Amino acid sequence: MKSKQIVLASRPQGLPSSENFRFEERETGKLNDNEVLLKTWYISVDPYMRGRMNDIKSYAASFQLDQPFSGGVVATVIESRSSSFVESDTVFGMLPWATYCIEKAENLRKVDIQSAPPSYYLGILGMPGLTAYFGMTEIGKPKAGETVVISGAAGAVGIVAGQIAGIKGSRVVGIAGSDEKCKLLKEQFGFDEAINYKTAKAMSKVIADVCPKGVDVYYDNVGGEITDAVLDNLNFHSRIALCGQISLYNSTEIPMGPRVFPKLLTKSALVQGFIVGNYSERFGEAFAYLTQWINEGKMKYTETIIQGFNKLPDAFIALFSGKNQGKMLIETE
Amino acid sequence: MKSKQIVLASRPQGLPSSENFRFEERETGKLNDNEVLLKTWYISVDPYMRGRMNDIKSYAASFQLDQPFSGGVVATVIESRSSSFVESDTVFGMLPWATYCIEKAENLRKVDIQSAPPSYYLGILGMPGLTAYFGMTEIGKPKAGETVVISGAAGAVGIVAGQIAGIKGSRVVGIAGSDEKCKLLKEQFGFDEAINYKTAKAMSKVIADVCPKGVDVYYDNVGGEITDAVLDNLNFHSRIALCGQISLYNSTEIPMGPRVFPKLLTKSALVQGFIVGNYSERFGEAFAYLTQWINEGKMKYTETIIQGFNKLPDAFIALFSGKNQGKMLIETE
Repeated sequence: MKSKQIVLASRPQGLPSSENFRFEERETGKLNDNEVLLKTWYISVDPYMRGRMNDIKSYAASFQLDQPFSGGVVATVIESRSSSFVESDTVFGMLPWATYCIEKAENLRKVDIQSAPPSYYLGILGMPGLTAYFGMTEIGKPKAGETVVISGAAGAVGIVAGQIAGIKGSRVVGIAGSDEKCKLLKEQFGFDEAINYKTAKAMSKVIADVCPKGVDVYYDNVGGEITDAVLDNLNFHSRIALCGQISLYNSTEIPMGPRVFPKLLTKSALVQGFIVGNYSERFGEAFAYLTQWINEGKMKYTETIIQGFNKLPDAFIALFSGKNQGKMLIETE
Repeated sequence: MKSKQIVLASRPQGLPSSENFRFEERETGKLNDNEVLLKTWYISVDPYMRGRMNDIKSYAASFQLDQPFSGGVVATVIESRSSSFVESDTVFGMLPWATYCIEKAENLRKVDIQSAPPSYYLGILGMPGLTAYFGMTEIGKPKAGETVVISGAAGAVGIVAGQIAGIKGSRVVGIAGSDEKCKLLKEQFGFDEAINYKTAKAMSKVIADVCPKGVDVYYDNVGGEITDAVLDNLNFHSRIALCGQISLYNSTEIPMGPRVFPKLLTKSALVQGFIVGNYSERFGEAFAYLTQWINEGKMKYTETIIQGFNKLPDAFIALFSGKNQGKMLIETE
């Protein structure tokens, strides 16, 4: 079977560009026992993948030059030599950016497309949703009446994290990059307040105004100056779920800023960096709660779905200018 | 009774100087029911007091202009109108920097000078010892075989924190400001390694060399560039007990440095700011362990005792150039 794929052509300096990506054609090869042939349906693009484009050891292995990108994919089984899957099954896996591929059955998980749209398994019922769940419930631990601030609030993780804080009875303040996103957060996702950081004059003051009782929980997807401003408003015994730092991922020099340890010290604040894999033994619990909240109508969801495998590099790059609302993904045609 | 006292003459910019302190004489006044008249014996000087010299709201109330400094004091009862204390009792209290004072009995705690020298109640059996205990056992949680790094290791808190990590079976690395202190840490206090940050060329590399398995626990008393270097060497799931930032206390501008959140994120690291008061319900437990370790010979201790009430301002200022080994305190003559 002929397949298109996208490989890492070169490592980016700063913001990735189309030159870092190369389209190729290859043969999927021959199907062996316990393998399935897959047709890709949805492909996830996520901010953390930027780190994998560097040649630096981190929690996720680096992409290799001239080798395909990979990440969360929902695909359809078109031929099976595994007893676990039959033709037309829908599966989730960490798979190459390719239109077709062969994969071992043991690396795939069947997903139920009757109870939720298939794309949800890359978002609210996938890595971003689980990330939001554990970061908010295990680190943020918002209580009723507390103030919770979320940066990158209109992104795939942010919209879920904010709604979980709302379900726990907290007052929820989102920070996002456009008036349209702020409107969405308040009208669709039940955020109590939303701040457009691109038009706010003095973020520290704006946050103080919007959070007159201070900030008890900060769910940080963004880092940098937005985070500096939130840290100016921390309450005693506040908790910071350190989930992402997208504003810094394309830095070409070591990012500098005001030192934060003195602020954390005087507030007896907690910061916990995390990745969703730290909680892998409890994915079932998170999945059950998220599904229940969706079914009860307590949890809303939105996606930015771009059509066409060829748009993958552009969709990924667009994450860093905040062109997505909610989860960004590609539907192959 | 005539008493000498020291009041805040002016608020310092940067490092405090003798001009910020003023000696006065006053009458202690008349003893009422449930009060005792005290003769000061030992007075504690602690880095955190620098923050109290600023007019900024923090966890400890600011000193007021023209009012006495105050802090941990061990004193002798010379007259009592309380049923709780008799003449010649030794007590601990948060008391003014004065040679004599009158205090309500309810604010004092009797200390046992048979089982430990009276000065210990300002150090290993006082605030610094309890701080080390809770920061290390509740936040650092060192395990056998892990690597624990302590900045300000030869200070009042550092020497206790390091020995607790050693008792827990960890490999203990201290950072201090002279070869003499480093020698002391290794020979007297059982540290496995000690780094003199004043002569080390490239701290990040030196720490990497001394900690070939990386850093699992960092007990931070210092902040700034030393902390930057330690953070370059964190292990996955490392814990940082954020106890002090003495290198920054005299900053006259907002201290800048490399952003630390990206480092914490990629290592799933924990940072917990704290003050000893957060654990006040468990002081008895800490006191019992520290006493036991001292009696078993597992815990050594050292003090820098300066003679004379008049030396108090100099002793306090000397903290910031690291002139002390272990706990710094004044013995009034």
